[in-house]
Amino acid sequence: MLIRQLTVIGVGLIGGSLARALREAGEVGEVVGCGRGRANLEKALELGVVDRYSHDIGEAVEGADMVFLGVPLGAMGEAFGAMRQHLLPDAVITDGGSAKRSVVEACRVAFGELCPAFVPGHPIAGTEKSGVEAAFSTLYRGRRVILTPTEATSAAALKKVEAMWQLCGARVTRMEVGHHDEVLAATSHLPHMLAFSLVDVLARMKENDEIFRYAAGGFRDFTRIASSNPVMWKDICLANREALSEMMERYIGEMSELAAVIRAGDGDRLLEIFSRAKAARDRYVDTVKDSGA
Amino acid sequence: MLIRQLTVIGVGLIGGSLARALREAGEVGEVVGCGRGRANLEKALELGVVDRYSHDIGEAVEGADMVFLGVPLGAMGEAFGAMRQHLLPDAVITDGGSAKRSVVEACRVAFGELCPAFVPGHPIAGTEKSGVEAAFSTLYRGRRVILTPTEATSAAALKKVEAMWQLCGARVTRMEVGHHDEVLAATSHLPHMLAFSLVDVLARMKENDEIFRYAAGGFRDFTRIASSNPVMWKDICLANREALSEMMERYIGEMSELAAVIRAGDGDRLLEIFSRAKAARDRYVDTVKDSGA
Repeated sequence: MLIRQLTVIGVGLIGGSLARALREAGEVGEVVGCGRGRANLEKALELGVVDRYSHDIGEAVEGADMVFLGVPLGAMGEAFGAMRQHLLPDAVITDGGSAKRSVVEACRVAFGELCPAFVPGHPIAGTEKSGVEAAFSTLYRGRRVILTPTEATSAAALKKVEAMWQLCGARVTRMEVGHHDEVLAATSHLPHMLAFSLVDVLARMKENDEIFRYAAGGFRDFTRIASSNPVMWKDICLANREALSEMMERYIGEMSELAAVIRAGDGDRLLEIFSRAKAARDRYVDTVKDSGA
Repeated sequence: MLIRQLTVIGVGLIGGSLARALREAGEVGEVVGCGRGRANLEKALELGVVDRYSHDIGEAVEGADMVFLGVPLGAMGEAFGAMRQHLLPDAVITDGGSAKRSVVEACRVAFGELCPAFVPGHPIAGTEKSGVEAAFSTLYRGRRVILTPTEATSAAALKKVEAMWQLCGARVTRMEVGHHDEVLAATSHLPHMLAFSLVDVLARMKENDEIFRYAAGGFRDFTRIASSNPVMWKDICLANREALSEMMERYIGEMSELAAVIRAGDGDRLLEIFSRAKAARDRYVDTVKDSGA
């Protein structure tokens, strides 16, 4: 059995699905939940996602050889601080935050130095649903998990976290912290900003009821991500503000160029831009198919 | 029977589905196809979408009491010119173009004046697929069709086109030409520009293979529309360049504001923007549900 006691701090879709997958694989002895909301933890208990729970982080991590942090990015620092004095010497810590530099920094501040036991991680998986009721054991099957070890991360801790995600069926890769944040700014954080802005700009128009009435099917897909949790996205923006604002400025430059081409009525240039984008998008879909994701 | 002879110029998804729906309703005598590609028209014949076809627009509209233009926006002017001398006195003309002002203008130029028989129209329907093989009789069921009659459009022509779309199961509404173009710039043309720009900006990054590899599920939905036909979109941008470039500038303003808020790390303001967008998006989805679309 890979893990004797898994403590999940923040038992939602991400942490709950991890617990379910490890249980199904028969690779975890006991699962301990931790969080603020009693109703959610009772639900987790009832669903068999956790074996017991505590509202106290220090208490919850006692005895754990694996601690998973599934809390919002803005709550990471407090969580590290609360667990620090209660960890076993062999405890490994990992997390599921969508930006990594800020989590590494929060850990460093709480521990006074880079922590060898901490393996920063990011499972690229999720649904629109949240909460422990939405958790399921196959969420990570075939999905990518990016680990961003620091120079202090111990080889043993890294190996254990890698093995844990592989047991969940994930494809694990490693990336440098800053590079992770840039890649995610481009592929996930920027698209969310586009969707939020689009909905907001339409909602602020005088005839917004009418506007939304005539929005066609593509619009619905396009803006689905604008329904994501505002608090989570506020945290992500703050945590990854450097890389994200740089990507946004790059994007604004591209949009301004396109607007100028349209204003000028330059058909050849439009055809060139749209053809290049279509080719890249079609190539991307083929890549995804090939990789079985 | 509402229509004696329907001539469809440009037998693709839109025109083909119209023919199929009217046939299924038993409300059309004969369907004549017209286009440049022989293979597509032979296919339309084989599938029973058309009864006969011609490559010559003048020949194809002879005998028709309803002419549907399903050609790209950039080809409308030529089509109006080619049909003009061959129309019966009772012929009604309508189209499926995604921008309306440019089509009205193309018709005016070809006919020397605003044509009473022309009812500009826009069915808000479609799939990613194109071509007559993709056509199906229920494409318009429950979907909106916007008609934008000019001051010259005859009441009889308008009534007939309205009845035609209702027979296809569509919900028909009327809108002023310029207003249509503004609403569509906001709800359809702008989102397409965002998707094209997003894919293009990522494709131009150094590490673009890696970027696309880590793009998650939401990204795929978000950029599906970037796979749309580049020629069609070039035409739409040129046809609706006024309204579209204005919408784009408004959007760029909003994005720049958001980028500045992120750069400044103003969490309260971010929460406010994301919450407003989420509320608007959720309200929109409810509206769509209520309206049965």
